[in-house]
Amino acid sequence: MKAEDAAIPDRDRPPLGYFEGREHRFPIRVFYEDTDFSGVVYYANYLRFLERARSSFFRLAGIGHAELLERDPALAFVIRKINLDYKSSAKIDDVLSVVTTYDVFKGARLWVTQRIERGGEIILTADSEAACIDLNGRPRRAPTEMIDKLKPYLLTS
Amino acid sequence: MKAEDAAIPDRDRPPLGYFEGREHRFPIRVFYEDTDFSGVVYYANYLRFLERARSSFFRLAGIGHAELLERDPALAFVIRKINLDYKSSAKIDDVLSVVTTYDVFKGARLWVTQRIERGGEIILTADSEAACIDLNGRPRRAPTEMIDKLKPYLLTS
Amino acid sequence: MKAEDAAIPDRDRPPLGYFEGREHRFPIRVFYEDTDFSGVVYYANYLRFLERARSSFFRLAGIGHAELLERDPALAFVIRKINLDYKSSAKIDDVLSVVTTYDVFKGARLWVTQRIERGGEIILTADSEAACIDLNGRPRRAPTEMIDKLKPYLLTS
Amino acid sequence: MKAEDAAIPDRDRPPLGYFEGREHRFPIRVFYEDTDFSGVVYYANYLRFLERARSSFFRLAGIGHAELLERDPALAFVIRKINLDYKSSAKIDDVLSVVTTYDVFKGARLWVTQRIERGGEIILTADSEAACIDLNGRPRRAPTEMIDKLKPYLLTS
Repeated sequence: MKAEDAAIPDRDRPPLGYFEGREHRFPIRVFYEDTDFSGVVYYANYLRFLERARSSFFRLAGIGHAELLERDPALAFVIRKINLDYKSSAKIDDVLSVVTTYDVFKGARLWVTQRIERGGEIILTADSEAACIDLNGRPRRAPTEMIDKLKPYLLTS
Repeated sequence: MKAEDAAIPDRDRPPLGYFEGREHRFPIRVFYEDTDFSGVVYYANYLRFLERARSSFFRLAGIGHAELLERDPALAFVIRKINLDYKSSAKIDDVLSVVTTYDVFKGARLWVTQRIERGGEIILTADSEAACIDLNGRPRRAPTEMIDKLKPYLLTS
Repeated sequence: MKAEDAAIPDRDRPPLGYFEGREHRFPIRVFYEDTDFSGVVYYANYLRFLERARSSFFRLAGIGHAELLERDPALAFVIRKINLDYKSSAKIDDVLSVVTTYDVFKGARLWVTQRIERGGEIILTADSEAACIDLNGRPRRAPTEMIDKLKPYLLTS
Repeated sequence: MKAEDAAIPDRDRPPLGYFEGREHRFPIRVFYEDTDFSGVVYYANYLRFLERARSSFFRLAGIGHAELLERDPALAFVIRKINLDYKSSAKIDDVLSVVTTYDVFKGARLWVTQRIERGGEIILTADSEAACIDLNGRPRRAPTEMIDKLKPYLLTS
């Protein structure tokens, strides 16, 4: 947890989720903004949920976006490929969990497995490949300290 | 708190915020999706934060959107007027609080005062007038049980 | 084109794109709302662009969402699976084209190939599988008149 | 119109709207992404429509966001205050017009009047105050060439 977060009283701190073994679990509530006129969550908005979970995983592991951007060169993590399988749909007021594992980290690339659940039911699965890039979009080997922070959560070969 | 929420373990339940006197306080974290290329939160996205807070206030007070829609006639709460004053700007990873009071409830109309804070600093103030409407957009007197649930939080004259 | 659209003067009518053979081409401009603090378009927002293009293709072919929803049973088209390959990134003020082909329509399912270009450069490719569903989420054979309207644009076997 | 825009064939160029006297008129179509489960456009999304229109006005007048950001110091236009009056609601597939006038430009501040119409019906009115700022959020006198470009559209005293 970052220093500034630690200074914030519990009840004023939005949750970052928690780890269960290698799995990071992140809670989401569905609000008006997430739905469309067909009555369920708009298909692009699940990607917002997935990103919130990935960012919170990073943050829990001690990695902040702002710090990456302050490095020289400035770095960011971006999704290069993602395969989405919409299995069911979420509705207003639903409580969801985004379950994330960071599987393999190799050079600039990070393979990620995610799913969104409501209770035990799977709403969506998502397999993605992220890359560490500089602000010109060029792949950059991730900083060693960052790899070290993620290592405990990666698949061991 | 709604029954289905109570059944969800604490750490899997997204926060609904809490009351301090008449003030409802709701925590928000700023994610990628909320920002724009100028580096700060996009001006329309604060309205999403404000709505999440108003909905969570309702929910904490025992009022759910889904239930309102299942009434006959189906009802919804919508914003009719809102005055926004952007005093500062929020950035990626910021932890914000949305502070909401429901001030006066009269017929179909509800007057709302909100502000968004980061620590003690005010980012935005918002005064709005909400209305209870049916699905044809006609104002409808709010259900008595709903008014009763909100009464403890309203201004007393 | 729908009747109500035809009544709107040209310069007040947002473009629905146009066909070049089987390919539908749809223009998009990147606005503030589409970008994030890293300076480029947020990854979920490309799915909004893809959907605008698919909806406009439908509309140009004479199929409107509102009409589908007014049928008995009410119908909607939803994405079941989508594979996204982010090859480059778009920036504020960019003019993009979304290129869409509807390839195969079988029962309730429709296979779609899309790409987003800037000039000749490919920003994103997307292969998806859409389904015609009723409002309970059950797959429904698409209406014959709808299949007939799309037939000229499908792959011939 | 910017040079790169001029190079794009008409049918691949998203509309920037047009002027009728001092009024800029900008066409919008309502897509899935804009609506919420209540069946109409989500209240925050009208602010995205308003910004698209303001940006397109700027662009038609020869002012681009990218160019402002490349100045030294980098500049951006932000909304400081906005009063919104939601008079009706827009639905999926609707064709809307955003009507914008830039009224008074004084130092760093610009007063803007906007409304969103569907046919002759007013959906929303919005009065706002924009400011020219540097990237630290400090108000900056707008560049003279920018004021000159907007002058023909301002109120004359």
